[in-house]
Amino acid sequence: MRPQFLLSSWLTNTKATIRYKGTCFSGSQVQPTQRTVEGELKKGLKELYKIDVPLVLSGRTDSGVHAEGQVINYNAPLEIPNGNVLNALNSILPDDIQVVNIETVDDEFNARFSAVSREYRYLFTQKEVPLWLNDFVVRYPEFNIDMNEFTELCEIIVGENTFTHFKALGSNERHDRREIKKCCVAKTDMQSVFYDTPLPVYQFVVEANSFLYRMVRNLIGAMIEVLRGKQSIADFKAMLTSKNKIYLYTTAPAKGLCLMKVNY
Amino acid sequence: MRPQFLLSSWLTNTKATIRYKGTCFSGSQVQPTQRTVEGELKKGLKELYKIDVPLVLSGRTDSGVHAEGQVINYNAPLEIPNGNVLNALNSILPDDIQVVNIETVDDEFNARFSAVSREYRYLFTQKEVPLWLNDFVVRYPEFNIDMNEFTELCEIIVGENTFTHFKALGSNERHDRREIKKCCVAKTDMQSVFYDTPLPVYQFVVEANSFLYRMVRNLIGAMIEVLRGKQSIADFKAMLTSKNKIYLYTTAPAKGLCLMKVNY
Repeated sequence: MRPQFLLSSWLTNTKATIRYKGTCFSGSQVQPTQRTVEGELKKGLKELYKIDVPLVLSGRTDSGVHAEGQVINYNAPLEIPNGNVLNALNSILPDDIQVVNIETVDDEFNARFSAVSREYRYLFTQKEVPLWLNDFVVRYPEFNIDMNEFTELCEIIVGENTFTHFKALGSNERHDRREIKKCCVAKTDMQSVFYDTPLPVYQFVVEANSFLYRMVRNLIGAMIEVLRGKQSIADFKAMLTSKNKIYLYTTAPAKGLCLMKVNY
Repeated sequence: MRPQFLLSSWLTNTKATIRYKGTCFSGSQVQPTQRTVEGELKKGLKELYKIDVPLVLSGRTDSGVHAEGQVINYNAPLEIPNGNVLNALNSILPDDIQVVNIETVDDEFNARFSAVSREYRYLFTQKEVPLWLNDFVVRYPEFNIDMNEFTELCEIIVGENTFTHFKALGSNERHDRREIKKCCVAKTDMQSVFYDTPLPVYQFVVEANSFLYRMVRNLIGAMIEVLRGKQSIADFKAMLTSKNKIYLYTTAPAKGLCLMKVNY
């Protein structure tokens, strides 16, 4: 075992911040035979270092879900300046993944277990989505959205709550309590050089210590039911306390979701 | 022949305006075994009308080239209100093609031969392209671009000129004279809900009676050589009059190009 011990003493724990467009990935987690974010990153690191480099993701994202600030860590088996690794990886990686930052971190740093909170953003509109935004913005029908009511729904979930009715069926998390640190919504006019008419986009932002599987998309789905007048705010609130699911909702589509930031 | 004559008298010449994202198409023109814009439109019309509907495109666009205002015409074999055809086609067509407008036109209207001019737009930046714009905006290196010089290059090509040195090798157009009706460039800050920092984008717009194969992308490629100081404005000008190509340039990438409008 001596040589392994010696080898491990040369390894440098490295943290990388990653962006990706989730459209053409079967999610983030490695799967044999499918194109995944983790798979592409492993391929890239192997091409750079010439050996398999195990890596840790802060958390998984579903197929179609994007990331602006996904974080990974891995033990770099060679001393190469971080700037050079960043440039080399970006030239190796496909067009839909970009490495934003690379830094050397303490041996104890773990992208998943050291994270104190994650921040997600969800985008939707009620107008026709222009083609160039089609992979990023979801279209909901044109019912009237009351921004005060939407804000009230956001405020209801802030704090520590039980999200059993907002996790995916069959997911096996042991505890369903999560602490929502921030939740807000804004309506923004999205300008661009592409169209004269700006696109009105609803931007939902939520930060929690961690999330249950599909929790953000389910929260959006359940809130939409209230916003379109099919359910009451009281019933939405009861979903956090009742043992039985109060009403049914449809999970919001993956493409509107983006992992914005992981805080450590 | 009588029944055919009768049948043709029922046909309604129909003009449709189409948008598409060119990324996942092998160009616009139908090709067996490849996914093309024309192929998808034909499939859509066949699903709607239950028979093959031949169609005419205003012109072809290469793989990766987008359209905001491509125009087609076809003889509709059934009388269905245009609004219903529009909705039906949009529900049949894949996510990356949208029908914007459908109208009944004179029997003489031909999407290709009735066109009096076409307008294209080319987008590029010198900054890192965010993932959500990656299919639409090209990145050139960070040399200093003089907007006065760029505008001068645009003005040089306006009017009737011979574009032999700007057509693709091996293309078989018989005449190389084209009339540029408009050519201009603007630098715009592209705002979005995605990033706080706006993206500075160069927006090149050109309108001509018609274009030679790859002409817009070659004009951009040749202009870039002048803008980065490798060639002179005089040499660019000489490309329009000389029998021999004055200098070499690289065809600009397809993804920055978009067919904006066809005028009739």
